[in-house]
Amino acid sequence: MSDKPQKKPHKLKARRPRGLEDRGPAEIAATERMLATIRRVYDLYGFEPVETPAIEYTDALGKFLPDQDRPNEGVFSFQDDDAQWLSLRYDLTAPLARYVAENFDALPKPYRSYRAGYVWRNEKPGPGRFRQFMQFDADTVGSASPAADAEICMMAADAMEALGFQRGQYVVKVNNRKVLDGVLEAIGLGGDDNAGRRLTVLRAIDKLDKFPVEEIYKLLCDGRKDESGDFTKGAGLNQSQADFVVAVIHSSVAIEGAVAGGEASGDAAAFVPHSNFPFNDYFSQVGLTFADGIVELGQIRRLALSNGYGEDRIRIDPSVVRGLEYYTGPVFEVELLLETKDEKGRPVRFGSVGGGGRYDGLVSRFRGEAVPATGFSIGVSRLQAALDVINRDQPPAQVYGPVVVTVFDRERIADYQKMVATLRNAGIRAELYLGNPKNMGNQLKYADRRNAPCVVIQGSDEKARGEVQIKDLIEGARAAAAIASNAEWRESRPAQFSCKESELVDKVRDLLDRHAIRST
Amino acid sequence: MSDKPQKKPHKLKARRPRGLEDRGPAEIAATERMLATIRRVYDLYGFEPVETPAIEYTDALGKFLPDQDRPNEGVFSFQDDDAQWLSLRYDLTAPLARYVAENFDALPKPYRSYRAGYVWRNEKPGPGRFRQFMQFDADTVGSASPAADAEICMMAADAMEALGFQRGQYVVKVNNRKVLDGVLEAIGLGGDDNAGRRLTVLRAIDKLDKFPVEEIYKLLCDGRKDESGDFTKGAGLNQSQADFVVAVIHSSVAIEGAVAGGEASGDAAAFVPHSNFPFNDYFSQVGLTFADGIVELGQIRRLALSNGYGEDRIRIDPSVVRGLEYYTGPVFEVELLLETKDEKGRPVRFGSVGGGGRYDGLVSRFRGEAVPATGFSIGVSRLQAALDVINRDQPPAQVYGPVVVTVFDRERIADYQKMVATLRNAGIRAELYLGNPKNMGNQLKYADRRNAPCVVIQGSDEKARGEVQIKDLIEGARAAAAIASNAEWRESRPAQFSCKESELVDKVRDLLDRHAIRST
Repeated sequence: MSDKPQKKPHKLKARRPRGLEDRGPAEIAATERMLATIRRVYDLYGFEPVETPAIEYTDALGKFLPDQDRPNEGVFSFQDDDAQWLSLRYDLTAPLARYVAENFDALPKPYRSYRAGYVWRNEKPGPGRFRQFMQFDADTVGSASPAADAEICMMAADAMEALGFQRGQYVVKVNNRKVLDGVLEAIGLGGDDNAGRRLTVLRAIDKLDKFPVEEIYKLLCDGRKDESGDFTKGAGLNQSQADFVVAVIHSSVAIEGAVAGGEASGDAAAFVPHSNFPFNDYFSQVGLTFADGIVELGQIRRLALSNGYGEDRIRIDPSVVRGLEYYTGPVFEVELLLETKDEKGRPVRFGSVGGGGRYDGLVSRFRGEAVPATGFSIGVSRLQAALDVINRDQPPAQVYGPVVVTVFDRERIADYQKMVATLRNAGIRAELYLGNPKNMGNQLKYADRRNAPCVVIQGSDEKARGEVQIKDLIEGARAAAAIASNAEWRESRPAQFSCKESELVDKVRDLLDRHAIRST
Repeated sequence: MSDKPQKKPHKLKARRPRGLEDRGPAEIAATERMLATIRRVYDLYGFEPVETPAIEYTDALGKFLPDQDRPNEGVFSFQDDDAQWLSLRYDLTAPLARYVAENFDALPKPYRSYRAGYVWRNEKPGPGRFRQFMQFDADTVGSASPAADAEICMMAADAMEALGFQRGQYVVKVNNRKVLDGVLEAIGLGGDDNAGRRLTVLRAIDKLDKFPVEEIYKLLCDGRKDESGDFTKGAGLNQSQADFVVAVIHSSVAIEGAVAGGEASGDAAAFVPHSNFPFNDYFSQVGLTFADGIVELGQIRRLALSNGYGEDRIRIDPSVVRGLEYYTGPVFEVELLLETKDEKGRPVRFGSVGGGGRYDGLVSRFRGEAVPATGFSIGVSRLQAALDVINRDQPPAQVYGPVVVTVFDRERIADYQKMVATLRNAGIRAELYLGNPKNMGNQLKYADRRNAPCVVIQGSDEKARGEVQIKDLIEGARAAAAIASNAEWRESRPAQFSCKESELVDKVRDLLDRHAIRST
């Protein structure tokens, strides 16, 4: 527009912030399939979809993240025009609590709902650790019954099997925060003043699947220095307190025995620990909280068993903690048991792909009355990665691109465009080559790159005869690979042929059928 | 846990920040259907999905928003740990440009892609104006051909018809920024120094569908005071300059004539304005930019016409501007022409539901070489609102909830849970009542609220006989509405019946069939 020489603009670097990923067609399709499968299971359980926005008031989300002592407390936050603080949601549970509280009277209660969506965490990204990732949550709000917790666990197991995991490749592990609270009470860590130390103990227990037990002891007692020299402060327990905590969380037998006892009595007040439970002297101090937790676990177990979900699918595990602070009762974790090999042949264990629990206090923060709730969240990307690995040995489904109509004569682009429209109107995926048409070689290379099943060519000779050339790229690739020995076979089904322009749709459809490609 | 009286916590208000919406099951399902329809059309055109994260570096997104003089310049931004600025994406085009630049060598070129996703604008929300909304974009990167622009316009038209809009209810309007640039050049607004004034003129033109033409004159000349008294500065044109601008944008005939001329010559350099074009004295100054734009419009029109897209579907309209700054050539807008009535019976015109254009400079900011690109964006929520209105007269599809198994005897919850599992295993959507089971009336009310087709009841009498009661809620509602006159009919198809527990699945399935409800 101006005759002045253009200022050379500063060239920007095309880059993503760390921990944020792009996704291509194969990954998008795989995730879509996975979400549809989970949705089908949740629908069958009578859950209905609901969606909340990405941005919420910071105070409505609350501060329940693990490792909240990191910069910005793990959350992306910014101030609104009116100076109120907003945050990107860091999970889908806190926004659901806000939603239920805001629409309380309009919702059926109990209210069962599910939602898939992105969440954001302002954390240090690492391998497999992203700052934006997708969760798929299901929650039941308004029921205090352990039947609601049991239902969530059974639904999680059903979802895993619907996705293709075999029985024995996964397990839903169940624990109860009340059991842990009871243990903490017994060792003298009850009361508001000890809230910080309790959290430190829970986080130490949560590391049991990552560290050997002697490292857990360090976290429970004086603290732990990691390989990089960073020091994590301990919970300050003495040896006997730490022994009791480790005995409970590390010994399924102990809690299983207690649960069997609680189950038999069916009543927290009447609960007496089973005689084979260790540390019976500490037990005199655990009180009703612990007993409550044990009885609830027994009820969940009984419901699961009576519905045919054996211990191979839903299992009580006293080491399950879940990092989030808002849990108040039963907590769940779905663990993948299958060991697989990574690209370098090293064994990889998947571990947790989802979890959840009861959060009776989250909705009541808004309501000023008790609103019991329980839920479960799947880490979509982690689960997708696991599915990719178990399906790795299967040949990937060959995905074909559109039919490419080439541009032989650029003056006749409208004619070629019309052929494309004709194919599309017949439901056949098709496109016009839109690059520089000078070189037919480039057009064929483009078609190859697009995985086109065939290309359509019409030069002036063909035009004069009212014909088009169809080049079968799949057949062509096979023929090129097989060379001489298949010469006769090639002759009978040639990789390139011509036909009347009026037969274009029929001939292309024959070709797609021959290669078993669905046209739409 | 502690015996101290609990401090009464400060009760939070459950509220959303302005301009951010929750979405329920019906809305989610409607959007899913809409996205699937659009996806089908775009797939048929050979476009493939790609997805980018919500957060990008602020400088990578650039500043191309209309009304960028608002607080925070319309974008939600925050600083990363390393002090670099991050922003939530405000559209899907700028992130695509970053994606293509970052993956340039790995992508086929031309690269056709589509994506649906949320975008965020830190603007003043209002009716129908949100701070989070969904866009569905399609783009072709790497083709400078007007055939790429024409393809986008045809695809947009196809999408509208696939969604159920009738021919005549929508139109794809096409203009060219080069035409507008040529006009601005002719009135002496060329050159870098006039960039600000050019933008002011373009924004004034963009308001032509909102304001009468005399208000546009004010914006072009000295400025305009709105009803609230706010003053918008004008572009400072004199009367004769403004007359020329208004004549061009306001008179389709003029540009249509010019396009017909350009089309006939087919070459910008040889372009001569048609003799019936007004202001031919200004035209001596429009230069090549204008002529280029006219010739491109002619090519797009010719391609559309030869593919059967008449002026009822794709039409040249010189008043189309598009607010975003990054457009460099053809610009498109999909306008809904249908007038409908709002809830109060007042006529409502929908106007624009999508738009786009050519943005040849956006990818090259990263590449330091020319990378032509063109694209189109649908405003998903606006389009959904329009679909809702045209479908308003149709009775809404009745959506049934799950079968509800009630809890008659709370000790036998495991038995009821097993009935639920039996129904689910047969593919029938079912749930256990998880609220307080004391009152059967509440359970039936809950089932009504969930739109359950029937409830299952088993008291101790039925249990003793190995039977269950099934209460048909649809039939029951009908019978209640019809009262006496249908007494005999009710007798033959009673709303409540009992059956053997072993027949539960069959009887429920019969009931669903009778009401034509799909079981899964």
